[in-house]
Amino acid sequence: MENLEPSRFFAILVVMLASAKVAGLLARRFGQPSVLGELLAGIVVGGSVLGLVDPHIPTIHLMSELGVIVLLLAIGMETDLARMMKVGPAALMVAIVGVVAPFGMGYAGCLAMGLGNLESIMIGATLTATSVGITARVLSDLGRLGSEEGQVILGAAVIDDILGLIILAVVVGMVEGGDATPAVIGLATFKAFGFLAAVLVVGGLIVPPIIRLAGRVDMPGTPAVLAMILALGLAWMAEGAGSAPIIGAFAAGLLLAKTDESHEIERAVTHLGYFFVPLFFVGVGAMVDLSALDPRVPGAGTALMVGAMLIVVGVIGKFIAGYAAPGFKGDRRVVGVGMIPRGEVGLIFAQIGLAKGVLDQAEFGAVTLMVVVTTFLAPPLLRLLVAKSEVPGPPDEVGIADLVSGQ
Amino acid sequence: MENLEPSRFFAILVVMLASAKVAGLLARRFGQPSVLGELLAGIVVGGSVLGLVDPHIPTIHLMSELGVIVLLLAIGMETDLARMMKVGPAALMVAIVGVVAPFGMGYAGCLAMGLGNLESIMIGATLTATSVGITARVLSDLGRLGSEEGQVILGAAVIDDILGLIILAVVVGMVEGGDATPAVIGLATFKAFGFLAAVLVVGGLIVPPIIRLAGRVDMPGTPAVLAMILALGLAWMAEGAGSAPIIGAFAAGLLLAKTDESHEIERAVTHLGYFFVPLFFVGVGAMVDLSALDPRVPGAGTALMVGAMLIVVGVIGKFIAGYAAPGFKGDRRVVGVGMIPRGEVGLIFAQIGLAKGVLDQAEFGAVTLMVVVTTFLAPPLLRLLVAKSEVPGPPDEVGIADLVSGQ
Repeated sequence: MENLEPSRFFAILVVMLASAKVAGLLARRFGQPSVLGELLAGIVVGGSVLGLVDPHIPTIHLMSELGVIVLLLAIGMETDLARMMKVGPAALMVAIVGVVAPFGMGYAGCLAMGLGNLESIMIGATLTATSVGITARVLSDLGRLGSEEGQVILGAAVIDDILGLIILAVVVGMVEGGDATPAVIGLATFKAFGFLAAVLVVGGLIVPPIIRLAGRVDMPGTPAVLAMILALGLAWMAEGAGSAPIIGAFAAGLLLAKTDESHEIERAVTHLGYFFVPLFFVGVGAMVDLSALDPRVPGAGTALMVGAMLIVVGVIGKFIAGYAAPGFKGDRRVVGVGMIPRGEVGLIFAQIGLAKGVLDQAEFGAVTLMVVVTTFLAPPLLRLLVAKSEVPGPPDEVGIADLVSGQ
Repeated sequence: MENLEPSRFFAILVVMLASAKVAGLLARRFGQPSVLGELLAGIVVGGSVLGLVDPHIPTIHLMSELGVIVLLLAIGMETDLARMMKVGPAALMVAIVGVVAPFGMGYAGCLAMGLGNLESIMIGATLTATSVGITARVLSDLGRLGSEEGQVILGAAVIDDILGLIILAVVVGMVEGGDATPAVIGLATFKAFGFLAAVLVVGGLIVPPIIRLAGRVDMPGTPAVLAMILALGLAWMAEGAGSAPIIGAFAAGLLLAKTDESHEIERAVTHLGYFFVPLFFVGVGAMVDLSALDPRVPGAGTALMVGAMLIVVGVIGKFIAGYAAPGFKGDRRVVGVGMIPRGEVGLIFAQIGLAKGVLDQAEFGAVTLMVVVTTFLAPPLLRLLVAKSEVPGPPDEVGIADLVSGQ
């Protein structure tokens, strides 16, 4: 990896921010969510087209990671935990079906196309996790983050991230020669859910008094800095506890939403987000390697065929999950479509598979194709459904919603 | 350089932010500017003591660089260009004497201590540039950024950064075998000042209408993102034009201060600064390598002796510069002391000398010692003088001043 000069770093940030802003505005002009524009901007400035932004440069990758941390912190602050608990059973069922169905169909599809058992499991795993970040941005772009559908989707997306992590832990254990015994699966499950539960219980006791104290300190910005320390600290601890950094940042947001200084923190997080969040979406877009799908490249044929299969089962598997919610009164199609985008989590799984030698470049290309198509399919589809929907959700508040939607 | 994992990156940011916050609060408790606490926090968490933060990890270094860009953007927005022009002649004289005197005395001192001609010139050059960032923070911590002394110091610090760049360009040319002809010096001077002048003239025409347009766009955060794009873009261009990135960011602040959306931008920059600016000061502190001054290390004796000489001429050279201002009515001692801290610019020059093979580790250690002592000397000295001063400056406005002072 090359050593990045400060001035080149600044130039790359300029390209990422400016392209995100221009493409986001254009997307809105065409009635699409601005996040779609930002993702497309990433593809254009990334290695596949202009080559201005290399998301594999460590610092650029880390800035993008910081972007998703700020985004999940913002989403956590925007989330009403009590209300999400109320839709909990619905979200849980949507998450479980939305993990099991695409995983099972993807696994079977890969086997049917002649892939090995371990590769098929690994590829199936890339289909499980809905991208919380992209889904939340799309919902917010459409003013539906606060609707009942929005709450179910958000809850299910968080839960399926955790389920995806459990599958990943088990799969990586199998790759490294272990067995998928109930004990292994049980431990992975305990770690992944246990972290979130422990943080919410312990944090619920200690975070509010600390923030109250910070609000009294005669140094402006103290609550905002504490919020970032909490989000980054929990992101770090989540990784260590076998959960995912974004779950830690989301938990930080849930905890901070209930504090005395939540308005001040929300303002600060929003302003940080204006800068950081586009870096995440452009970074995700820039990770797309279009050349893996170039018919002249060896393996592109397989990549395209496997990819097409993954897209079909990936879309169907999440769409039917929308119908799994018990006693849900809202529009099940919106829930199903809202669960479709896979985004960065699928790519992260696929990269681990590539690094462990389980997947080859063609299979990695197939997963990339699935991630790109599912991510880009959801915003316009959702736009179509919501425009036709008879039950408008409550409008989002100004503040973090601006950030999540407004870029 | 190792590849930084996201979760470790988050952990390092937590250490930097938390130590800066705690040490900043402690410094204030003891009546010192909080920036002093942040610098000390950097030494403690850096490689010399706890080893938690390695400022040479590329991404950590770049985050720190981003911090100084945000800081100079904030300082530029806080600066009243018209008022600075009024103290222009005073600032120019302070800058010139404050560059020539320490450079000449340092050069002569090094020669007298038996160092070679090129080394002596290089070390002399490290004495020239006052750290705008540290000085501005100290002044603001003391509520004197808006005073006449404050304006002269700020103006002189910006000018001597530019003069330092000219010297650096000439010295690097000499190291690479060129001669310091008047033509070479003239070109370096033209490049360094020409950039700032060109940016202020061209930017003054095109920035205000662009920001006015951005303010009308129905996407919150647009002016704030444009401000960051401008600051980072000018920082990048400054480097390309032979000036320094911080001059570009400062120019961006001057331009943005006069736009319709300046209040919105100021709020956004302040919030970004709460996060980024401490990363810069902790990063500067963490760069200090105390082991170069350990008497058991070979060369530490020379480092200590040369370092002591540099401290003496470095302090005297800048202090007498305070008396060079023509027709200045304020407290000349405040101006002289305010110019003392060298900070990152001296370290950057010394690192270039080390990289080019002109300086050895002991000489680098001597410069480090000078930078540390001058940086740490100024805040308490200034505190002493200003407490006794009879003419209080106007209080700083809330907003960016909070950021520059309030951490």
